[in-house]
Amino acid sequence: MYTKIRNRDLKVFEDIVGAAHVHVGAAIDADLAHDELGTVAAQPEVHLVVTDKHQIEAIMTHCNQEKIPVTVRGSGTGLVGACVPIHGGVLLDMSKLNKIIELDPLNMTLRVEPGVLLMDIAEYVEKQGFLYAPDPGEKSATIGGNIATNAGGMRAVKYGVTRDWVRGLEVVLPSGERIVTGGKVVKNSTGYAIKDLIIGSEGTLGIIVEATLKLIPLPNKSVSLLVPFDSREQAIDAVPKIIANHALPTAVEFLEKDSLAFSEEFLGKQIPHADYPAYLLLSYDGNSDQQMEDDVNAISSFCIDELGAIDVYLVDTDERKQSVWSARGAFLEAIKSSTTEIDECDVVLPRVHINEFLKFTKNLSRELGVRIPYFGHAGDGNLHIYFCRDELSEQKWQKALEIGFDKMYDKAFELGGLVSGEHGIGYAKKAYMERQVGPAQMTLMRGIKQVFDPNNILNPGKILS
Amino acid sequence: MYTKIRNRDLKVFEDIVGAAHVHVGAAIDADLAHDELGTVAAQPEVHLVVTDKHQIEAIMTHCNQEKIPVTVRGSGTGLVGACVPIHGGVLLDMSKLNKIIELDPLNMTLRVEPGVLLMDIAEYVEKQGFLYAPDPGEKSATIGGNIATNAGGMRAVKYGVTRDWVRGLEVVLPSGERIVTGGKVVKNSTGYAIKDLIIGSEGTLGIIVEATLKLIPLPNKSVSLLVPFDSREQAIDAVPKIIANHALPTAVEFLEKDSLAFSEEFLGKQIPHADYPAYLLLSYDGNSDQQMEDDVNAISSFCIDELGAIDVYLVDTDERKQSVWSARGAFLEAIKSSTTEIDECDVVLPRVHINEFLKFTKNLSRELGVRIPYFGHAGDGNLHIYFCRDELSEQKWQKALEIGFDKMYDKAFELGGLVSGEHGIGYAKKAYMERQVGPAQMTLMRGIKQVFDPNNILNPGKILS
Repeated sequence: MYTKIRNRDLKVFEDIVGAAHVHVGAAIDADLAHDELGTVAAQPEVHLVVTDKHQIEAIMTHCNQEKIPVTVRGSGTGLVGACVPIHGGVLLDMSKLNKIIELDPLNMTLRVEPGVLLMDIAEYVEKQGFLYAPDPGEKSATIGGNIATNAGGMRAVKYGVTRDWVRGLEVVLPSGERIVTGGKVVKNSTGYAIKDLIIGSEGTLGIIVEATLKLIPLPNKSVSLLVPFDSREQAIDAVPKIIANHALPTAVEFLEKDSLAFSEEFLGKQIPHADYPAYLLLSYDGNSDQQMEDDVNAISSFCIDELGAIDVYLVDTDERKQSVWSARGAFLEAIKSSTTEIDECDVVLPRVHINEFLKFTKNLSRELGVRIPYFGHAGDGNLHIYFCRDELSEQKWQKALEIGFDKMYDKAFELGGLVSGEHGIGYAKKAYMERQVGPAQMTLMRGIKQVFDPNNILNPGKILS
Repeated sequence: MYTKIRNRDLKVFEDIVGAAHVHVGAAIDADLAHDELGTVAAQPEVHLVVTDKHQIEAIMTHCNQEKIPVTVRGSGTGLVGACVPIHGGVLLDMSKLNKIIELDPLNMTLRVEPGVLLMDIAEYVEKQGFLYAPDPGEKSATIGGNIATNAGGMRAVKYGVTRDWVRGLEVVLPSGERIVTGGKVVKNSTGYAIKDLIIGSEGTLGIIVEATLKLIPLPNKSVSLLVPFDSREQAIDAVPKIIANHALPTAVEFLEKDSLAFSEEFLGKQIPHADYPAYLLLSYDGNSDQQMEDDVNAISSFCIDELGAIDVYLVDTDERKQSVWSARGAFLEAIKSSTTEIDECDVVLPRVHINEFLKFTKNLSRELGVRIPYFGHAGDGNLHIYFCRDELSEQKWQKALEIGFDKMYDKAFELGGLVSGEHGIGYAKKAYMERQVGPAQMTLMRGIKQVFDPNNILNPGKILS
């Protein structure tokens, strides 16, 4: 169905990006065959490093004409196989298309190339007194990858997700044509929302070659509170009430003795006040000391007097913040390093149903005989749940995944949840999405893919089969 | 091309919605042939009042089968002809599908039918301590119409636009199938953004039959500041600096002596401190008196010491708020009542270019010999500019519109602006959108329309020709 890459294609690519940026065979780094989770793996036929959007136009024009599949890759930090070239072909490496083009302080926008890392954006804009608020855990992800998955992160409670922070996109279509959608403008009711359709399309509809991001003034102050409870149930039940309270937290994470234990072992140190069964970790930001103090006092009393919290610990020094947030940030790495292989579920639920879903997960773990640690964003209902293979045979492991995921997604749908809160569908979650959205929406999605990519050459086999 | 409605179609409709909800011929209210602006007019063949989403499924199934065009109408407050049934057929009247279904205080969501009015949503949720933040000027618009145009409003500076506040939609497709996209969840990376594609599609891709909206806790306090300047230029130049200051205003409107004069005459009263050439009207919200006072003091000093404001007047009593905001709110009505006919331009620009664009508009007004008053949202770069016919002959009026709009949109595009900030494309702005987005995006949009509506029966001739 697809054209295998021939010498004459390589010659074309060399003319476009230069011979030094064309890699084939053994010269292709083995890590480029998989993403961060590694459950999906496939070798590209050629690895092209691009440094300019016009190269991408030329590559797509050629590949579309010759029916060569193209898969776009940023930092490869995804967890559902979206950047894995399952049909071979071209792996289009965006990591060197990584210039910060312009910070416009008066329009409060940042123009970037897609390969810029999240951590570099944060550093760049914060130095100049601005905030780009989306805050996914993986700071070495590219902004292009974040936009492609509509990444969420911890600050979604107050600030929303990546979609809410993208004002404009420049996109190369599978045909090689380049379009601009949106811009430095705050509002837009100009025709169909092509920008929003590209956001979250996981590199299947077009290639993001430039993004204009929204910035806000950097809040002057921030504070975190570590709030211990007697049980997970009590901690999680408190969350919607805390959010409906007047000061909106930037983040509400839950920590549990079990999951903290992974981090403690992984990092070799404990968080302060580590002796409680469960915690909420709350963050607030603002602009005056007085306001922050008022907020902290109000929320502390509310937690203790009304919600049954045992205590409220202020996480205010840099050292304490670093200790607590690094424990939270290390969960995925810690869980990975605790076992032989993992697979994950990234459901998002209405936040009132988190407890019920976690209880279901605990029971499932016992029933299947599989260790299933989890963590997640209690504030936005997005859970990250990890099946750990440990010493299971390949057959038992596959069986456990099949039965386990089926049951978990069905339970999530029953509770009004969706397959993915922030990691996307990619290759790994296609069947579950199909089950959730049903045949009418699948027909729409297939039709949309066909409109953008009639030859199905751009990241084929992702999101849709 | 389309089937004219026959008696047997009427019989089908009567079976679906009841004979009392089927109107034909002279029984159709004349106002249903046009929208608020009235520049586009056409008579429906039949006016159907629906009260239930299943009726809509049945109507669409029939109309799709029989190739009968269907145009959806809420309150008819649009300005670009989107709700005008230019091909006749069915006018689907959503105004009675207007139940507030559920306020979920813990997930902080509101489920509504599409015919609920904005003012009713505001009253309902604010009584229970919540805020639905989008704040378009026309409070008698339906939420369905707001979603269909991705309406913006005054609070976009701080809170974004309608899109940012829609968590989930239930939609009847042109085929009569019903889909659910999104839900009560905060994050979503589950396949293509069908919800976001429906938002802003002006009733051409599907019929919104239920929406789940995001709420936040209602801020306890709000204050407005009326800030006079010596000139419009000075006032507007101050805006980006005020926004980049640390307390983010909810709204930043500009008022000018000329446009205020319309309101004063229309309302028969002056705003307080009415003697200055230009003003900014700033609003802030928050949760503590102390914080608001600090913010007001800081922004007042900043305006006077750094930005050249003449003074800063606190608009704090209900009476003063009512006086100032009603003057601002009356602009459209006042301009309409000042002339024989109007047409409008709803461009959105990067906010730093507002002055340049208004200067261009002033020159154009002189050049064309047409009165062109304007007002707008200085905070988000969205301008509402009105061509007033006054005593011009039909020929001169059409000529002035043609030349004037051509020049204005070209100027807007040159400055990185877009055709519509919040009123949409509808029937009236199609040519300008096509010029802005170019052939590749037009092909995508046409393809998307074809995927959703292969028989082109749903609001045909809108957004796309």
